[in-house]
Amino acid sequence: MTETPQKKRKRRGSGRVTMKDVAKLSGVAPITVSRVLSGSDYASPAARDAVMAAVRELGYVPNRMAGGLASVHAPVVPILVPALRNAVFSDIIMGAQEHFFEHGLETLIGNTLYSISKEEHLTRTFLGWSPPAIMITGGTHSQATRDLLSSIEIPVIELMELVEKPLGINVGLSHAGAGYDMTSVLIERGYEDIAFLGTMPDRDLRALKRMEGYQKALRDKGLRGDGFVQFYDQPSTFQLAAQFADIYLENRAKIRAVFCANDVLAVGLLMECQRRGIAVPGELAIAGFNDLSIAESVHPRLTTVHVPRYEMGTKAASMLVEVLSGETLESPIHNVGYEIIEREST
Amino acid sequence: MTETPQKKRKRRGSGRVTMKDVAKLSGVAPITVSRVLSGSDYASPAARDAVMAAVRELGYVPNRMAGGLASVHAPVVPILVPALRNAVFSDIIMGAQEHFFEHGLETLIGNTLYSISKEEHLTRTFLGWSPPAIMITGGTHSQATRDLLSSIEIPVIELMELVEKPLGINVGLSHAGAGYDMTSVLIERGYEDIAFLGTMPDRDLRALKRMEGYQKALRDKGLRGDGFVQFYDQPSTFQLAAQFADIYLENRAKIRAVFCANDVLAVGLLMECQRRGIAVPGELAIAGFNDLSIAESVHPRLTTVHVPRYEMGTKAASMLVEVLSGETLESPIHNVGYEIIEREST
Repeated sequence: MTETPQKKRKRRGSGRVTMKDVAKLSGVAPITVSRVLSGSDYASPAARDAVMAAVRELGYVPNRMAGGLASVHAPVVPILVPALRNAVFSDIIMGAQEHFFEHGLETLIGNTLYSISKEEHLTRTFLGWSPPAIMITGGTHSQATRDLLSSIEIPVIELMELVEKPLGINVGLSHAGAGYDMTSVLIERGYEDIAFLGTMPDRDLRALKRMEGYQKALRDKGLRGDGFVQFYDQPSTFQLAAQFADIYLENRAKIRAVFCANDVLAVGLLMECQRRGIAVPGELAIAGFNDLSIAESVHPRLTTVHVPRYEMGTKAASMLVEVLSGETLESPIHNVGYEIIEREST
Repeated sequence: MTETPQKKRKRRGSGRVTMKDVAKLSGVAPITVSRVLSGSDYASPAARDAVMAAVRELGYVPNRMAGGLASVHAPVVPILVPALRNAVFSDIIMGAQEHFFEHGLETLIGNTLYSISKEEHLTRTFLGWSPPAIMITGGTHSQATRDLLSSIEIPVIELMELVEKPLGINVGLSHAGAGYDMTSVLIERGYEDIAFLGTMPDRDLRALKRMEGYQKALRDKGLRGDGFVQFYDQPSTFQLAAQFADIYLENRAKIRAVFCANDVLAVGLLMECQRRGIAVPGELAIAGFNDLSIAESVHPRLTTVHVPRYEMGTKAASMLVEVLSGETLESPIHNVGYEIIEREST
């Protein structure tokens, strides 16, 4: 048995270093210390250096809890994403964090695992922090989540997709449009027997919208009605996509290209084609969605849809900061767009 | 110009639903409501169901800010990681979040981008939240960060690597040991001319330790002294690793295998070998580190070191919860170990 590694020295109480101590040592007014620490622009570089030197020397720790109460809201914005380990969402988070950080705001990250009941629970928990705003993925929520988000007086931002009736601010892109355009590009390249591969159509509703865009493009070009759609009920993984190689081999006559709902599926399938000696794009053309960094590295390089993820995060954060500063947005809806990237796999 | 999407309805004030209202509607004592909402085990399933039904019906939002002040600490544990978009760290975070969530704790995630000055800034900011504990990656910090973490009275947990003089709790593995063992396995397989490929040796200190283990294994087996080491100064990406193919082609006589500091480098190099027609492992054997999910999917499948990331997160979180509950840990240090996974690429 060793001692519990709790530190014994006191932090709170009369010995605590305060903002006044920092102001005294750095020779500036307490309001200047406050400005520097909140990342405000209204402090000279010299004042900033003096304050930061004093902060270091005294080991000053700003009391954010007290700050939060004083301003009613805690300086932390919750962001709910469906899959933290998906680089798509970590890029958005990083973009938002960078911008928030410059404005003295932190982020609380919630991982819903594509479950609307987990989203509801996290929303309730995070609202308990009295945040100044909340970010959430997509426009489909449980009725309880909608009620919660409609009843609060803080800005709500819905990310990733353009939402028909946004709860507040909305920053995203049209997934149906992107699915339509990618399918149209494949058709223009001469592929007619195009399959669609996706996962969790009841949870990953943006993937479902890409599929709807795919079907609409097929119909508009006079190709067979609903196409060849394969959904799996598990989350997208490289391993899962390999299973589609069997389906392709059984349906060679009906499939000449496959549009995957995301790059993870496309890359996993591409790898399995290499393993089985199925020539890409010679025998099977493969397209993905998201433009993850691996899309550019696989051999052959992957045709996919580029989504400006980091920019989506910074844009959403900057719109929130504007609103929190009392400014009026030109429009509460911002379409970040997308780009079809044609590479060697199609 | 559209209206700023701020909601107008009131949330605070006399109309606010309280824990008492939830208790009344669900027919249990307020302490039971509190237990259910904090995830305590001391509530019956029936009470839990009744409370959750009332919470939904009333739209109750627990006031976590007040709760945080009442218990001195906010119920949120900061976790500082060097690269949020690296699945290695999102897996650890997910493991920790799952366990914390069951105990009514949230996480604040900080992204240091492998910078010890950013780590210092985030540590200072997060400590301002009066968290009940803090998690941080690795054992190398700036002196100011060490001073801050030594002066606070809350548990500090260092993750990912075993640290010589931990600040408190330490959950990790020996990266030098893993580097040594992987190199030894390659030597036993008959590879003698083994190169090491890594990035940012001054920032990614765990990669540096893997390299030291690699060099020690070479020396112990009587192979040439320092081996063939190539470091790049940028973060690891699939694209960056492709550059090593040039170095290999110029040094064919001296390189028969390459041990990459992480799977991203190994997979990027493997893809480039495919592109250039370099046979893996026929001409060049490739090994990685981390066992990301793609390691099992690439063709040929990647030999790598499996690191129990999710388990590391849950173990660290469970040790913290024990300490916060006043229990004494058997040891403040927990070695999660690693496993060499031999696949087709070597």
